Amino acid sequence: MKILLLNGPNLALLGTREPQIYGTDTLDSIVAAVKARGAELGAEVAHLQSDAEGALVAALGRAARTCDGVVINPAAYTHCSVALHDALLACGLPAVEVHLSNVYRREGYRHESLTAGACIGQVTGFGPYGYIMALEALVREIRRREGR
Amino acid sequence: MKILLLNGPNLALLGTREPQIYGTDTLDSIVAAVKARGAELGAEVAHLQSDAEGALVAALGRAARTCDGVVINPAAYTHCSVALHDALLACGLPAVEVHLSNVYRREGYRHESLTAGACIGQVTGFGPYGYIMALEALVREIRRREGR
Amino acid sequence: MKILLLNGPNLALLGTREPQIYGTDTLDSIVAAVKARGAELGAEVAHLQSDAEGALVAALGRAARTCDGVVINPAAYTHCSVALHDALLACGLPAVEVHLSNVYRREGYRHESLTAGACIGQVTGFGPYGYIMALEALVREIRRREGR
Amino acid sequence: MKILLLNGPNLALLGTREPQIYGTDTLDSIVAAVKARGAELGAEVAHLQSDAEGALVAALGRAARTCDGVVINPAAYTHCSVALHDALLACGLPAVEVHLSNVYRREGYRHESLTAGACIGQVTGFGPYGYIMALEALVREIRRREGR
Amino acid sequence: MKILLLNGPNLALLGTREPQIYGTDTLDSIVAAVKARGAELGAEVAHLQSDAEGALVAALGRAARTCDGVVINPAAYTHCSVALHDALLACGLPAVEVHLSNVYRREGYRHESLTAGACIGQVTGFGPYGYIMALEALVREIRRREGR
Amino acid sequence: MKILLLNGPNLALLGTREPQIYGTDTLDSIVAAVKARGAELGAEVAHLQSDAEGALVAALGRAARTCDGVVINPAAYTHCSVALHDALLACGLPAVEVHLSNVYRREGYRHESLTAGACIGQVTGFGPYGYIMALEALVREIRRREGR
Amino acid sequence: MKILLLNGPNLALLGTREPQIYGTDTLDSIVAAVKARGAELGAEVAHLQSDAEGALVAALGRAARTCDGVVINPAAYTHCSVALHDALLACGLPAVEVHLSNVYRREGYRHESLTAGACIGQVTGFGPYGYIMALEALVREIRRREGR
Amino acid sequence: MKILLLNGPNLALLGTREPQIYGTDTLDSIVAAVKARGAELGAEVAHLQSDAEGALVAALGRAARTCDGVVINPAAYTHCSVALHDALLACGLPAVEVHLSNVYRREGYRHESLTAGACIGQVTGFGPYGYIMALEALVREIRRREGR
Amino acid sequence: MKILLLNGPNLALLGTREPQIYGTDTLDSIVAAVKARGAELGAEVAHLQSDAEGALVAALGRAARTCDGVVINPAAYTHCSVALHDALLACGLPAVEVHLSNVYRREGYRHESLTAGACIGQVTGFGPYGYIMALEALVREIRRREGR
Amino acid sequence: MKILLLNGPNLALLGTREPQIYGTDTLDSIVAAVKARGAELGAEVAHLQSDAEGALVAALGRAARTCDGVVINPAAYTHCSVALHDALLACGLPAVEVHLSNVYRREGYRHESLTAGACIGQVTGFGPYGYIMALEALVREIRRREGR
Amino acid sequence: MKILLLNGPNLALLGTREPQIYGTDTLDSIVAAVKARGAELGAEVAHLQSDAEGALVAALGRAARTCDGVVINPAAYTHCSVALHDALLACGLPAVEVHLSNVYRREGYRHESLTAGACIGQVTGFGPYGYIMALEALVREIRRREGR
Amino acid sequence: MKILLLNGPNLALLGTREPQIYGTDTLDSIVAAVKARGAELGAEVAHLQSDAEGALVAALGRAARTCDGVVINPAAYTHCSVALHDALLACGLPAVEVHLSNVYRREGYRHESLTAGACIGQVTGFGPYGYIMALEALVREIRRREGR
Repeated sequence: MKILLLNGPNLALLGTREPQIYGTDTLDSIVAAVKARGAELGAEVAHLQSDAEGALVAALGRAARTCDGVVINPAAYTHCSVALHDALLACGLPAVEVHLSNVYRREGYRHESLTAGACIGQVTGFGPYGYIMALEALVREIRRREGR
Repeated sequence: MKILLLNGPNLALLGTREPQIYGTDTLDSIVAAVKARGAELGAEVAHLQSDAEGALVAALGRAARTCDGVVINPAAYTHCSVALHDALLACGLPAVEVHLSNVYRREGYRHESLTAGACIGQVTGFGPYGYIMALEALVREIRRREGR
Repeated sequence: MKILLLNGPNLALLGTREPQIYGTDTLDSIVAAVKARGAELGAEVAHLQSDAEGALVAALGRAARTCDGVVINPAAYTHCSVALHDALLACGLPAVEVHLSNVYRREGYRHESLTAGACIGQVTGFGPYGYIMALEALVREIRRREGR
Repeated sequence: MKILLLNGPNLALLGTREPQIYGTDTLDSIVAAVKARGAELGAEVAHLQSDAEGALVAALGRAARTCDGVVINPAAYTHCSVALHDALLACGLPAVEVHLSNVYRREGYRHESLTAGACIGQVTGFGPYGYIMALEALVREIRRREGR
Repeated sequence: MKILLLNGPNLALLGTREPQIYGTDTLDSIVAAVKARGAELGAEVAHLQSDAEGALVAALGRAARTCDGVVINPAAYTHCSVALHDALLACGLPAVEVHLSNVYRREGYRHESLTAGACIGQVTGFGPYGYIMALEALVREIRRREGR
Repeated sequence: MKILLLNGPNLALLGTREPQIYGTDTLDSIVAAVKARGAELGAEVAHLQSDAEGALVAALGRAARTCDGVVINPAAYTHCSVALHDALLACGLPAVEVHLSNVYRREGYRHESLTAGACIGQVTGFGPYGYIMALEALVREIRRREGR
Repeated sequence: MKILLLNGPNLALLGTREPQIYGTDTLDSIVAAVKARGAELGAEVAHLQSDAEGALVAALGRAARTCDGVVINPAAYTHCSVALHDALLACGLPAVEVHLSNVYRREGYRHESLTAGACIGQVTGFGPYGYIMALEALVREIRRREGR
Repeated sequence: MKILLLNGPNLALLGTREPQIYGTDTLDSIVAAVKARGAELGAEVAHLQSDAEGALVAALGRAARTCDGVVINPAAYTHCSVALHDALLACGLPAVEVHLSNVYRREGYRHESLTAGACIGQVTGFGPYGYIMALEALVREIRRREGR
Repeated sequence: MKILLLNGPNLALLGTREPQIYGTDTLDSIVAAVKARGAELGAEVAHLQSDAEGALVAALGRAARTCDGVVINPAAYTHCSVALHDALLACGLPAVEVHLSNVYRREGYRHESLTAGACIGQVTGFGPYGYIMALEALVREIRRREGR
Repeated sequence: MKILLLNGPNLALLGTREPQIYGTDTLDSIVAAVKARGAELGAEVAHLQSDAEGALVAALGRAARTCDGVVINPAAYTHCSVALHDALLACGLPAVEVHLSNVYRREGYRHESLTAGACIGQVTGFGPYGYIMALEALVREIRRREGR
Repeated sequence: MKILLLNGPNLALLGTREPQIYGTDTLDSIVAAVKARGAELGAEVAHLQSDAEGALVAALGRAARTCDGVVINPAAYTHCSVALHDALLACGLPAVEVHLSNVYRREGYRHESLTAGACIGQVTGFGPYGYIMALEALVREIRRREGR
Repeated sequence: MKILLLNGPNLALLGTREPQIYGTDTLDSIVAAVKARGAELGAEVAHLQSDAEGALVAALGRAARTCDGVVINPAAYTHCSVALHDALLACGLPAVEVHLSNVYRREGYRHESLTAGACIGQVTGFGPYGYIMALEALVREIRRREGR
């Protein structure tokens, strides 16, 4: 099983960026943890971080032919990217959306997600552990679908 | 460790109610699974389902003195209950909000959550398994706080 | 045939409450008239009035197993109760919504009904007689469905 | 007693128009049924269907001098015709608004009625039978007013 | 000089229609007064009242070739007719809008005028005398333009 | 008969201020014309121009005891002054609102008038001549009320 | 004279709940102070706290026959309960609304009160002392009405 | 193959009406060009222009039995006619909407089309040539459907 | 202790202005009552009424150096004056807002207060007695702060 | 003549992506058809598909110096890209916007186009054939401008 | 060259007013700095601070005849004064708007400026130094215009 | 001191792009002027122009480690890029936003800035000179912070 882990804009700065909101874990440590947990679950995790909406869209397009599912933190693009929403539908893969912070405690425009409706579900507010929750749920769903 | 599992209006009908949206698991089976997983994690899970907003508010008030955390599916009250929002803050306990269906795929008024901002985080769209995800995240957070 | 007649908040005060809007008939006289008309139509009418949203939701949950249809005046809950809307769908019974006053002549927020979309239809503005209209239409619809 | 039965735009196509929404009864059969029920109640029913807002307004103006009440299905004009609203008030007759489909199950803009506030009440969602309900309620109200 | 006096929906009922709002003058008496004042000012006044938006639009289209100006009371169409707005621009004639009642004392949706922006100006709230004010202002403007 | 003519902010600059919108007449010439027409009608016209909302409010307060009516061009305060609206009601005098330009051809926020609902009516779009129209209509209304 | 003191959801937790907003007084101490002040004023104060909207509505229904006035802190229900608004009107008693915190310093949705319009007036922001202010104003009003 | 060409309000004035927006072609010349292109494509084109919403609705009702498709420029009714939207659905014919000007360069309320959603598609901004584009696309679609 | 009593626009007309809303007490009698109650409480009350927003702002600026607290009825400026809101914050004094009428029973735009959030609290709906309530609460708060 | 054909995000997946909405033609086949039709019309068509908003903007910037016109399907960027709108204006070339699906049958946020107002016109709903319509209209317009 | 420096409501309190937002510089020191920089640039700076909207409007009216440009900090009036907007246009002088704090970090209603559109440009967020920036830009623009 | 000068989409076309809005200076000349002024102030200015939101976000991420401050003209991304807002906060550098044109004179959606709240301040409307103003203010602020 192959999983694409997609991280959106500004997440490369994790660990130094506003740690009171995003914590002190770096993106590298989070990705390593997700890959490790993936390995335990029998899933190979490929990672891409990009600040560019188009690169994320393109990665989903490529994943349509090469991956079994997607864990995505669209970051700022969550709230305004019709293109990512369309790309998630277009790639046809099961996806899980994850946010580090609790979006409901932040600015009102961060409460709405354009992308979550194109995913299986969303996990928000649990910090880096949310990625593990998302991965586990995704692997579980892929297994369930294969079982059909 | 003692966890309060709160289920809001109409959830008693799970399994027969609109199964294309909510699945065929009954509430009893979900509660049993949460309790079993709780036992594995060393957490005693007490359950209350109520169709009444006031009963849910009151249960949170009582839990303030007797529990260590809350897993809550506020169902229809998610989107309009200021009282539940206030109760979650007033009880002072860490809480995790869970929804069976992916709220972002449903009516627009179900996208907003008045209660999630008073919780650690929210898990939405993973069916009954979402309760397990919520419980695990809650127990993890309670342990983390105790460790401080 | 068994019909549940549900009356929402403040309707127990009918006859004394703002008679220029709601008329001088008491709830007892209205219920008696509905029961009498039900008897003529071969329908047993059980009545519940409650000021509590949760009690109305719960009654619908119980009716799912014991009744053939619902006549409901959700009163103030018409305009803001997602829970009643969900309960009407969850119970799976044909229902008719009735209002004593013409909601379109009152405050703007009374024009919208969250619950009517989960019913067969709505009757508004005909005073106590609207209950008879609702009952007749409901019995007619139940008979039609049985005939299928 | 003389009743004007007014049907608004596109209702001439009933029976063939989107039968999954509007049913398979033709307008002729509905009008015949209303006239028959009117005869039983001692009310002569005159019918006009028009696709033109102005023709409906003018018919209400003429009815002010010749009729005792109005049953009206304003169809699409329900939601945007200030002119029909004003005409219903200007003619000074008791009127009942009727809709074949349950407007609350359709597009949001069909939930609001500009015209119902100028009527005694509204009946929505009961198909052709709604016209009979409307007629009965109207005749009842006219008799009640005469009795004053 | 030839002036078209256009009156919109429901104005044929003036004198009997809600006299507390619209007064007791009939449309005939108002038209006669406008014609008399027109005669004094050297302007021939042709009158059309119609309940039909399309008839008013068509009248403006014909007037483009035969008249020098327009006094128009669009009544209910004031607030929602893009077609009349376009027709006033399309006919290319100077026009004055008039309302019997003070629209700012009525429902909020009557405060906005789609048509007034396509006229020289608007007179509102002065009852039948407002037509005389409108006529005088229109004749004055036509003379001013001719003088250029 | 004594009339207060009130002019609001920036009107002292008439004649030089954006002449493509407001024309080339000065305020002095307009006031002189209004006074002259008042003299013909047997009405003494007192004039006040102020850029200050409070000064206009205070002038209305004083006029309550000394004047028979008000012609007012509230200019920019038309669209946002609750105080002027309240002052017009509080002084209890008949008033007519006038605007030089056609407010419906300008920015959307100029379409709404907070003050016109507290006046008999409004005249807009006729340039300086609109003041004469307003004065004539006001004098006519004062005479009509005296005749009662 | 008999006064009903009604306290809404979450107020049982006063003293421990978010003391930076609600202070450190307990509900018991506030109720005791209100009763004491009532005794000085010759008014017997009966108290009910409930987290349930329906229980508050029902209490108002009962009070209609047994009390002379109401002091009510609807808490979270202030901003969304049409049922409490209707109940305050339906019971026909003079009522005063009180809030501990200054609602205008909190979230925007707490600025609007659905219930205050059905009361004599509202007191907000004075902490527990606001209850005394409300009681005194209520007793004064009841005496004034009796004096008529 | 028979095509109905429908033109809405004010289009009879084309050529003289605001030529900077609508160009200098007359409606006659446009209709002639559409008929000529229709003849080349083997389609007989019947034309109706009306300023009346009801007449356009009625024409669609008649076309349901006599035509194979519709080219429609609803003009001002595009943006506010629920009746035309319903009529396009009710007639069951493939339709193409066309606008002379680019609606996206004009007032915001002209950007939304109530009617286009009931058509195959929309062509906007290409002047008279847009009618040819619409006709060609419609004929193509009718042929495609026949081929199924 | 020195208290500034500020009254906003149109309040000088109290007693004659719309007595059905504002009662028959004059401003002089209210001010006298407030001063008398102040004297009992050991507080000297200085009064200013102004129709001018700027004068009220300036008075607060001066009070910053000379007074201990403010009772303010901003009247119409309550709902739209950012300047008064800023002035209340800038002067740094404890303030209490008071309204004669119950703002929640009036036009929707009177429900919002821009200024109350810059005060300790607000009292609304108790007529002239509300000023006494406001004064007592203010003096109490000043004493409480001094006691710290 | 040189034409730039620009395709926006997710269009590379055409043929496999949600075929019930977008059809089964691939982007390659559409581009080939456009190029072939271009050759017939004497126009060389250069194609670029990109998922990146910035790449589309940059392509328009380059085209300003090398092309005579643009056919653009901005896909998801249609509804939210101010940058593309600005780029279309900045490049100064005539452009035609095309959409495969009928945007008016989809989510409300897809009805508005930020980019179409910067084009000659828009074609929506005709599937791949819409590109041909757009190309033909563009070539026609370029020829018309050259002829000036 | 003569420059009018206008400061709006509450700015007289600078230095003591909320120093965490507005800093500790007094208005006197800012004005002195602006005058000194003006002298260096060959510009005489006249200063007026007023809490009154009308006084600011009037000052602009006088400046039309005596000054060459305006530096204005409209403070609270920025966001709601149509009168100041009109005055800036009416005086016909180049003006620069300045704000001490970064308005985009404050309440949403402070993001919009009614007045800036009537100025050359706006400088916001640089504290007292922003006045120097504004002055330099204004003098530069006046010189540029003179050079034409 | 090292400054990053960032220019957003379409700015590469400056000088030829809509010169009536953006002037005739090229981006090269503006950048050269900023670098020259930077040299005078002892600041090295590195420049990047990109049409891609992601490239601008990434540049800010790199600048976090290499620069002391940012001058940014986000152009079209100003009004809709949450990602740039987050990037400005994430990089932790002082930044100044600049716009060539006066955004308050353009479309309403250009009045709001998502990015300015993450900067020290904003300069808008002064053409190329605004970049110099921004640079000077930025250098001044960096020096001030270093001095702390």
